[in-house]
Amino acid sequence: MPELRKDPIIGRWIIIATDRAKRPSDFISKPEEPIIGFCPFCKGNEGKTPPEVLAYRKQGTLPDTPGWSVRVVPNKFPALQIEGGLNKQGVGLYDRMNGVGAHEVIIETPDHNLSLADLPLEIFFQVLQAYKDRIIDLKKDHRFHYILIFKNNGQAAGASLDHSHSQLIALPIVPKRVSEEIRGAKTYFLYRDRCIFCDIIQQEIETMLRIVTENKDFIAVCPFASRFPFETWVLPKKHNVYFEDTPFSQLQSLGEILKDILQRISLTLNDPPYNFLIHTTPFYEKDVSYYHWHIEVIPKLTKVAGFEWGTGFYINPTPPEDACKFLREAKP
Amino acid sequence: MPELRKDPIIGRWIIIATDRAKRPSDFISKPEEPIIGFCPFCKGNEGKTPPEVLAYRKQGTLPDTPGWSVRVVPNKFPALQIEGGLNKQGVGLYDRMNGVGAHEVIIETPDHNLSLADLPLEIFFQVLQAYKDRIIDLKKDHRFHYILIFKNNGQAAGASLDHSHSQLIALPIVPKRVSEEIRGAKTYFLYRDRCIFCDIIQQEIETMLRIVTENKDFIAVCPFASRFPFETWVLPKKHNVYFEDTPFSQLQSLGEILKDILQRISLTLNDPPYNFLIHTTPFYEKDVSYYHWHIEVIPKLTKVAGFEWGTGFYINPTPPEDACKFLREAKP
Repeated sequence: MPELRKDPIIGRWIIIATDRAKRPSDFISKPEEPIIGFCPFCKGNEGKTPPEVLAYRKQGTLPDTPGWSVRVVPNKFPALQIEGGLNKQGVGLYDRMNGVGAHEVIIETPDHNLSLADLPLEIFFQVLQAYKDRIIDLKKDHRFHYILIFKNNGQAAGASLDHSHSQLIALPIVPKRVSEEIRGAKTYFLYRDRCIFCDIIQQEIETMLRIVTENKDFIAVCPFASRFPFETWVLPKKHNVYFEDTPFSQLQSLGEILKDILQRISLTLNDPPYNFLIHTTPFYEKDVSYYHWHIEVIPKLTKVAGFEWGTGFYINPTPPEDACKFLREAKP
Repeated sequence: MPELRKDPIIGRWIIIATDRAKRPSDFISKPEEPIIGFCPFCKGNEGKTPPEVLAYRKQGTLPDTPGWSVRVVPNKFPALQIEGGLNKQGVGLYDRMNGVGAHEVIIETPDHNLSLADLPLEIFFQVLQAYKDRIIDLKKDHRFHYILIFKNNGQAAGASLDHSHSQLIALPIVPKRVSEEIRGAKTYFLYRDRCIFCDIIQQEIETMLRIVTENKDFIAVCPFASRFPFETWVLPKKHNVYFEDTPFSQLQSLGEILKDILQRISLTLNDPPYNFLIHTTPFYEKDVSYYHWHIEVIPKLTKVAGFEWGTGFYINPTPPEDACKFLREAKP
């Protein structure tokens, strides 16, 4: 019997389509053709990107030259523009404003052939440190209300360059999905005086049905109402509001668990395209006892089609309990 | 300068990324490889589908034999199951219920090689009539609160069979996207005592910036806050609550305008994969002065990636005013 499950945070229902239940082997896709041509993210091509805004590099090396391990540059084709005011306006019954924001690229390695999951732990950690440093810097710009860090890995997941990178977009508004999570978490907090994410973690630890792995600071879980097969979330075990406040030692354990999860997904599903994104608290929320930052990892295995566009409802052919078992068995 | 626009109904912001502005030729994709193998939707193979629940057929022909022009059958691999009760339950802090619902396939033609846009108008009209007849029948089942009719055309848009067909899913809950539209439209109505869809139509007729085409009963418009390039909505000009109440004569003009729009999209974008879906009023809404059914047509031209999953926010590289111009110039 298929099952309907409700996301406890934003109230989105999903269908676990048990009659279509799928194992990892059903999702193995053909490898993509590599994107051929000049790569502006490679070592030696630093002059082909806009000037770097951050780089971790060998002492004595100059900006925009080789010698870096992780490098952050403005996106050459930004979705939003850094200069200017918002100029909010009504147009009849419609609302618009200028597309002001930051759009940056975090180049995760100078080596074209390494994937994020393959990076040594100390470099993986630097990538997370770069996320944190860029958020702290951009937060000073009072036009921005939210920053999303995300990664598109593989063409099918939206990457337009093969070279391993992630992206940052700073927005002048709090986006809908985040507002929904905030609203859901606030409603729960008003009712129970507890953080819903903390309660989820506690229930998951009690049942052990959906926990893929954990370490001293973090837990990785396939959510009860997963939209997608093998969707996995990483959450700090202790209540934690802002990703960018994560201390040094915790950023290291985050690196360990995120690398581990990416490797398990790669082993289980033959290096599939995937997205991940960090959901953190909007800058102007006050006294946030109710929201808890986390990372959502989404392998790109199914197609979103008319039903999903029409309903905001997802059909997931792999129960998260099954996905969790497969991911647990993978040994990075 | 890129622009942020807010959907007036559900409040979703989108980015018009003008610096990435794209013309139709930028979206022309390689034709897909056809799905090869036995086709259960073809004339003569009626025995390979579950028994038909509706067919328009030549007098004297038997059910589940040739002689039909449009045929509706239960989906052989349904996302939801027709029998049983909902059995709503809490599981700790989570909510679940049985996946009860109907999942049917509307086979739009016995001919494997015809697309919906190519069907003669009288058959196109029968497809719409089948949508209407199936909703009216399923509405009698009081377990269902909503029915979505949708079409996935082409593999990239989620079709698993090439043979032209659309789908119907009857749901025991009102899905999130529809609830959001209802809520947004209700809020607007409380404030202004007018239907937001009627106001949008009036503003669009005044500005003529985004109207692709119209006839006596319907209008086709590229929405102000289009999520996707060349997204086009078809709306009844007069306030109209339930799709299934559409009278015979209006269903004919709907057929004319929808066929016209699908042909314009096909001509402009070289027969792209697409989705469309019908948004109608949930069954248990009362005295609905605020909601207005419509059809959303979405060519599948861009990839939804980490940014969209993380924010519920879309980056659209083609301003709807430009998309509208290209579609107007296409001559079916």
